[in-house]
Amino acid sequence: MTVPFIPPRRILMGPGPSDVPQRVLDAMARPTIGHLDPAFVDLMEEIKAMLRMAFQTQNALTFPVSAPGSAGMEMCFVNLVEPGDKVIVCRNGVFGGRMLENVKRTGGVPVVVDDAWGQPVDPQKVRDAFKSNPDARVLAFVHAETSTGAQSDAATLAGIAQAHGALTIMDCVTSLAGTPVRLDAWGIDAAYSGSQKCLSCTPGLAPVSFSEKAIAKIQSRKTPVQSWFLDLNLVLGYWQSAGKRTYHHTAPINPMYGLHEALVMLEEEGLENAWARHRAMHEALRAGLENLGLKYVVDEAARLPQLNSVFVPAGVDEAAVRTRLLNEFNLEIGAGLGDMAGKIWRIGLMGYSARQSNVDFCLQALHTCLR
Amino acid sequence: MTVPFIPPRRILMGPGPSDVPQRVLDAMARPTIGHLDPAFVDLMEEIKAMLRMAFQTQNALTFPVSAPGSAGMEMCFVNLVEPGDKVIVCRNGVFGGRMLENVKRTGGVPVVVDDAWGQPVDPQKVRDAFKSNPDARVLAFVHAETSTGAQSDAATLAGIAQAHGALTIMDCVTSLAGTPVRLDAWGIDAAYSGSQKCLSCTPGLAPVSFSEKAIAKIQSRKTPVQSWFLDLNLVLGYWQSAGKRTYHHTAPINPMYGLHEALVMLEEEGLENAWARHRAMHEALRAGLENLGLKYVVDEAARLPQLNSVFVPAGVDEAAVRTRLLNEFNLEIGAGLGDMAGKIWRIGLMGYSARQSNVDFCLQALHTCLR
Repeated sequence: MTVPFIPPRRILMGPGPSDVPQRVLDAMARPTIGHLDPAFVDLMEEIKAMLRMAFQTQNALTFPVSAPGSAGMEMCFVNLVEPGDKVIVCRNGVFGGRMLENVKRTGGVPVVVDDAWGQPVDPQKVRDAFKSNPDARVLAFVHAETSTGAQSDAATLAGIAQAHGALTIMDCVTSLAGTPVRLDAWGIDAAYSGSQKCLSCTPGLAPVSFSEKAIAKIQSRKTPVQSWFLDLNLVLGYWQSAGKRTYHHTAPINPMYGLHEALVMLEEEGLENAWARHRAMHEALRAGLENLGLKYVVDEAARLPQLNSVFVPAGVDEAAVRTRLLNEFNLEIGAGLGDMAGKIWRIGLMGYSARQSNVDFCLQALHTCLR
Repeated sequence: MTVPFIPPRRILMGPGPSDVPQRVLDAMARPTIGHLDPAFVDLMEEIKAMLRMAFQTQNALTFPVSAPGSAGMEMCFVNLVEPGDKVIVCRNGVFGGRMLENVKRTGGVPVVVDDAWGQPVDPQKVRDAFKSNPDARVLAFVHAETSTGAQSDAATLAGIAQAHGALTIMDCVTSLAGTPVRLDAWGIDAAYSGSQKCLSCTPGLAPVSFSEKAIAKIQSRKTPVQSWFLDLNLVLGYWQSAGKRTYHHTAPINPMYGLHEALVMLEEEGLENAWARHRAMHEALRAGLENLGLKYVVDEAARLPQLNSVFVPAGVDEAAVRTRLLNEFNLEIGAGLGDMAGKIWRIGLMGYSARQSNVDFCLQALHTCLR
């Protein structure tokens, strides 16, 4: 007979999930109601309004997809890319590569702009790509590369796309609520994020937002969206404003409670204060990591405060250190992905994890393991 | 400033979600751990084992998709159907229609077998469809039609498919853990369900199971799976046994705690006892509904115990009754969908909702509203 699962109590300083505050956990345990209950409709409206604040947008079509961030990514591509559409995809880490994979599976024609892992996307290369491909319909890039900790200049990149009449898809899974994300000021047409990073909710929901231009493209498609579950033409009927809602799928009720509470906490703190806290905690961690002799992967100008990638010192067994941190300190930090596997650690300071006690504890634990 | 959301405490007797026991809600609120944490890997293995028990299968590839039942459906179709593949789709309600939509979006060639809403699928029509389409590769049907409350004879239908060398995809969203589901005995190749029905977990996860024959088909596909998020070739690397797991997406950690607890409770009760309880509560509800003069939509032989569809009596404003039940009694029952909208009520007795106190309360409330 299987017994109930009691998880260990970890401190989560990897690339996500981040620590979830007790208030959010408590919200997850409130009684389930129906997904067509008027009270749930009200909840959805509040979530949409608070997500607009987080994304800094007036986009009506802003809501959480009922699935993880990867599904949010796929929703953007399957709705905005039709077979034959040319898409400029910037790849400077794992998630740019995943975008490319999405373009291929929609039948889009990808034009890849490569930058080294750990570097931000080079705007000049994007300009050149548009020059060689004036018929490109979409530019896709990752704002904050979770695999490396590099942040790209979203405003500049989106501006280039606009100058060429292309739509912009932006991955802000790791940036949303951690560093400034300003969809409207930058002119982003489609953005997706995840609940489990700087929002400090449990994993499983993907906040997304679509501009009017994006909706116009979706509504004028010549081919049906290949995914039923992610077809915005159908999802729109479910998430549109109260009263007219039609059944599409059953939303994950309790995780929505959690996301609502996480967004209430973000409102209480203030978005700009949250950005400042991530920055301040990063400065504190950085000082400590440098004291330990650790070197950052990303140049200071492009460094994400909420994801600190450092090289594993020569002669150190990186997996053994992570295992010891987990087993002795209940502390999770992240390994490298793809090309960076075995070479770097990724230390997250996301959402509720970005607090002084976590910084101190992590530095102390690393000091013990590295001395 | 938005305030925390405190949901009303409802009694859920619609078509799902069903009442969630406090033990499951409590599990949802346990501290979040990382999705690559060894403790989470153990949890996943236990969930997979208990789902095999629930599905009555030895299928190694049995796990919960990180998204609602609709995504579980889509996973079955995008992996098992290639462009040009002929698929016999049985449609006797909303969800058969959704299967058809999925076939179209994968580029499959659908052959539709229609039965009236409220009727089970007619096996003779399926035999005839195979006779006219001996090249059909897949048979798809809904075991328990949530839109009508009709149950089809899965063993017979799957047997017909086997006799013609076709794979079988079965929707058991509403049947799993409520009435017998026996994947291996029936020879089902792909099945999907939902967490929020007779498993009495919160909505958002879709248990699925695939046979060795299904895996062979997936591995010998000539075309890539159109969905990245739902591509079993990739998901396999994530859900396969401990040690070798590769990162695919971030699983919804806390909902997995909830599903684990719901499955532990199912194990404790015993699967056959759960089936018997659904049957007994149905008998009690049926006697009461008939006393109130309500007529069932579905003939007794095909009637699902866990979803009681009854015609709205002449002269009764069905929406007004549901609104009154919700507002005065905190009781949710379901409306009709599609062709049955406005004509029927759907009263669910699923999972934890299938208990005597709910039956009594529902009958009393209906009595008050209908007298």
